Amino acid sequence: MAHHRFTPNAYYQTLAAHPAALVIRNGDTVTTSTIDANGYDLNNQFVAADPNPMSGPFLVEGAEPGDTLAVDIQKISMTRPTGWTRQGLAWHVVPAAEVRAMPPREKIIWDIAPRQNAITLQNPPPELRNWSIPIVPMIGCFGLAPDGGEAISTATCGRHGGNMDYRRFGEGATAYFPVTVPGALLFLGDVHGAQGDGEIAGTGIETSAEVTFRVRLIKGQKITWPRGEDETSIFTVGNARPLELALQHATSEMLAWLESGYGLGKIAASHFLGMNVRYDIGNVFNPAFSVACRVEKAALAALK
Amino acid sequence: MAHHRFTPNAYYQTLAAHPAALVIRNGDTVTTSTIDANGYDLNNQFVAADPNPMSGPFLVEGAEPGDTLAVDIQKISMTRPTGWTRQGLAWHVVPAAEVRAMPPREKIIWDIAPRQNAITLQNPPPELRNWSIPIVPMIGCFGLAPDGGEAISTATCGRHGGNMDYRRFGEGATAYFPVTVPGALLFLGDVHGAQGDGEIAGTGIETSAEVTFRVRLIKGQKITWPRGEDETSIFTVGNARPLELALQHATSEMLAWLESGYGLGKIAASHFLGMNVRYDIGNVFNPAFSVACRVEKAALAALK
Amino acid sequence: MAHHRFTPNAYYQTLAAHPAALVIRNGDTVTTSTIDANGYDLNNQFVAADPNPMSGPFLVEGAEPGDTLAVDIQKISMTRPTGWTRQGLAWHVVPAAEVRAMPPREKIIWDIAPRQNAITLQNPPPELRNWSIPIVPMIGCFGLAPDGGEAISTATCGRHGGNMDYRRFGEGATAYFPVTVPGALLFLGDVHGAQGDGEIAGTGIETSAEVTFRVRLIKGQKITWPRGEDETSIFTVGNARPLELALQHATSEMLAWLESGYGLGKIAASHFLGMNVRYDIGNVFNPAFSVACRVEKAALAALK
Amino acid sequence: MAHHRFTPNAYYQTLAAHPAALVIRNGDTVTTSTIDANGYDLNNQFVAADPNPMSGPFLVEGAEPGDTLAVDIQKISMTRPTGWTRQGLAWHVVPAAEVRAMPPREKIIWDIAPRQNAITLQNPPPELRNWSIPIVPMIGCFGLAPDGGEAISTATCGRHGGNMDYRRFGEGATAYFPVTVPGALLFLGDVHGAQGDGEIAGTGIETSAEVTFRVRLIKGQKITWPRGEDETSIFTVGNARPLELALQHATSEMLAWLESGYGLGKIAASHFLGMNVRYDIGNVFNPAFSVACRVEKAALAALK
Repeated sequence: MAHHRFTPNAYYQTLAAHPAALVIRNGDTVTTSTIDANGYDLNNQFVAADPNPMSGPFLVEGAEPGDTLAVDIQKISMTRPTGWTRQGLAWHVVPAAEVRAMPPREKIIWDIAPRQNAITLQNPPPELRNWSIPIVPMIGCFGLAPDGGEAISTATCGRHGGNMDYRRFGEGATAYFPVTVPGALLFLGDVHGAQGDGEIAGTGIETSAEVTFRVRLIKGQKITWPRGEDETSIFTVGNARPLELALQHATSEMLAWLESGYGLGKIAASHFLGMNVRYDIGNVFNPAFSVACRVEKAALAALK
Repeated sequence: MAHHRFTPNAYYQTLAAHPAALVIRNGDTVTTSTIDANGYDLNNQFVAADPNPMSGPFLVEGAEPGDTLAVDIQKISMTRPTGWTRQGLAWHVVPAAEVRAMPPREKIIWDIAPRQNAITLQNPPPELRNWSIPIVPMIGCFGLAPDGGEAISTATCGRHGGNMDYRRFGEGATAYFPVTVPGALLFLGDVHGAQGDGEIAGTGIETSAEVTFRVRLIKGQKITWPRGEDETSIFTVGNARPLELALQHATSEMLAWLESGYGLGKIAASHFLGMNVRYDIGNVFNPAFSVACRVEKAALAALK
Repeated sequence: MAHHRFTPNAYYQTLAAHPAALVIRNGDTVTTSTIDANGYDLNNQFVAADPNPMSGPFLVEGAEPGDTLAVDIQKISMTRPTGWTRQGLAWHVVPAAEVRAMPPREKIIWDIAPRQNAITLQNPPPELRNWSIPIVPMIGCFGLAPDGGEAISTATCGRHGGNMDYRRFGEGATAYFPVTVPGALLFLGDVHGAQGDGEIAGTGIETSAEVTFRVRLIKGQKITWPRGEDETSIFTVGNARPLELALQHATSEMLAWLESGYGLGKIAASHFLGMNVRYDIGNVFNPAFSVACRVEKAALAALK
Repeated sequence: MAHHRFTPNAYYQTLAAHPAALVIRNGDTVTTSTIDANGYDLNNQFVAADPNPMSGPFLVEGAEPGDTLAVDIQKISMTRPTGWTRQGLAWHVVPAAEVRAMPPREKIIWDIAPRQNAITLQNPPPELRNWSIPIVPMIGCFGLAPDGGEAISTATCGRHGGNMDYRRFGEGATAYFPVTVPGALLFLGDVHGAQGDGEIAGTGIETSAEVTFRVRLIKGQKITWPRGEDETSIFTVGNARPLELALQHATSEMLAWLESGYGLGKIAASHFLGMNVRYDIGNVFNPAFSVACRVEKAALAALK
């Protein structure tokens, strides 16, 4: 169970069966650098075209279609003292009649201070002069090569993962992806220093980072949509437009999880979810939206 | 500042400018009984037709269009030892291709035991034999007479409130509604003993209850959509289909709140929301869906 | 089978069980004036508040819940030499990213010349200096009092009809509405001199008119959504948001029509529709959108 | 301006920068065989995996990103005496509550008789015993290699075209696609013998065919979404979910066409569209829906 240090010399703007950049084994850990959504690295040098250039792919030996790849996100470190967002909100998160009154979408620079655990605006409007937020890093875009020979843009997301921009894919979380090609071929990048629900500004704090993750191969466990868990919850992620379809996929995947993982039949799972489900809106910005169907572990404990 | 005890002798299936059932004053408290969504009372006797027959309306003296009515939900007590749900999930919360495999939507009875603070299935499937959930009561349907002479079914929701089925409208929360007719005309009912996000079973634990609330009139404060707050959060609620439109209305209302209530311009408010917003899906079942745009008070504290 | 001439002395902004303005009988014909969507009459005098003030209601003796009311639209005459639209397109019919580049929504006046059968812009942009369109009048908003004691704004539409803004509800067409209150209570107004699909400018040529219609009561025929027919087609109209839900309701109603009216089982009706269905987008502007599921009579003829 | 006869020896399930199967020149005509959506050829032999295996790609010499490729569909001939559909309608074109009552989605065989110009069910339900439909062939899936290095499944559609399943892409029509890779790389297949709007059965009459088309390269004309024209209309096609987003893209592309092709400013184009637009629902079945924004040539003639 090796620990690999990896520095990409190429980046990908699609998740696809690209040649492996590093071959790893079940249980291995990797520390890799990532660059920001626009392709700027830790020195703020442009090194790859947008959108969301990916580090990888990491080929996991022995992974076969029908398996699940677990990715334990052990550490996400900021490697640059700045990040950026876009001013204002994405125009489709307010009613169309209000778009004309929204501010223009200029690029905004933020300072990232890991020692102070603080992110602050470089040129704040007066109201925000004393405002800062903590660093709560997350992986915006990651996933596996998709099925069917597709090469899917890192602008969007789907069954294979991709640009989900869901804030619970942070340090300490595990993501589960369905393997559909031999070797799984994991890509990751687009780290955000912080972000609210929905990525409604169209960005998180976009920056470069160093990510340490471990892969675990779950042979013969077939899942359909990305899943995840963190300290407090398990969740499934549907990626689609509109939000209702994303919610449907996530809910259906959670029913499957409760059935195969917790022994609940469909009726029992429905009773349980009806009283306990939580929905998070991962992103409502990308070509496909992400909705997480989430259950708190405290609620699962009541099943015993 | 009187405390009224009220027992309805009529119930309404629309929110509209119906004759006042009780006239109250700014600051008054009311304790009223409510019946369940199908019109059964504390004795499980059928007393009014569905959907969601309402107690009220309560006319608040001095309330005028352009004001806001705050409703402090002080207490929600269970008054019947049973509640009900529908089996399975609402068919549109899973992909259409999976509907045919879903269980039929039979009525399911639950026992409500306030002393044990527990709700349990009367005839649980084996997997749920030892499962119970705590009572976390909420008001499913409440709001004011709508604008424009409309009489809006209690099956749905809108700017006036109505059947939002949002679990954060529980004990200790305050709801804010836009007043659009003289006297405001507050209705409430459809209490749930517990419910997850989205009301994805199509119901919460539907039961009769006793609700104690205080009204506070905020003269001259014009809001557009329902707002609320509880111990940890402030939130706005957009009621519409599809989910995206509900989210747009909620987001827009939160921008307005951050502007008028917290002094943030649109750019500042956008920066703040982009990093801090939380979205809850109140209901994804009714004719209009409810999405809450929520900000934690801890995040607001960082604005000082 | 009388022919009534009716001039309203009151107008309604909701479809509801308002007091009958005129009592008519099965087979009777009515000629009524209507005013424009903003409440201006044939003299361009403001006589009633918007939205879409209605003439009526016309109570049809003997109509009972469970019946269908057929409304034969025999004649729609322009009564004013002008109509109006809004400049530009509704902002939500282009992608949100393009809204800021759209023209402001100013009121635009058009000349209506029945003798020339022409509608022309009063102040055309140069490119449209020689442009005119023929008068193809239609009823924008009409329908019956809704079920459940609701009073539904004339801004929107539903099972009861209402503001569908569907261009095929023109001269020579018949509309069918489900009766849900005794007497049916028919309202109509909001005539447009012409309009494309979708009412994407947010208006047709809004103007006053004189409408002649005959009512026919179809006892015991229960329909769920508005239906219609014209010289070439039969159609059903679903009114909801989003477009997909409106389409679902319309399709479902057409399946029912093909079953009860043409003797096709669900499998046969599906084969037939799969090859023959036409969808029209009535409106994609109002709070509820209208989608028509349409079948050409030529295609129906092939069933013999 | 050569006429090529082409028989594929490989088929593609993605539109991507695959190696050219045939190099052609601006103005050339190609006659190619196509196989059905499930990969069965003119002998009903399985020769390629689904979905919608494509003939091509055809590389057009001199085509560069920023150009438009016009594809004149000159002839579509049926090459097999049978085609197939799925029984019933796609489950999401009726309300979720009705899905459980829909017939199972079995494969249905139809006879195709070009001499009689008739398509008939092999085993019709009694109601359809004498029913037939004419052959009105169309290309279900065609388009160019997409931008950004993507390989997009032939199950779906986008800016590059793809599986639009729009019935107006038939004989005599011209399709226009934005070129985004050198050589354009045109793919086509999935011919339907006939189909209604929306592809609501999830299929047209799926069969093999022979397609004759001519390519015309329009240098330096940049379009964003597929366009088309037939004898009576010009149209633009937006491919996205939900229907509203597809409609937005189509409308926006038509505004651009009216501006660059007909000299109408945005205000003039909006006046014109508001009165003349027609929307067709190409497909409401695939992962991305297709909505066409259409204008009749008769209406365009009124611009002179």
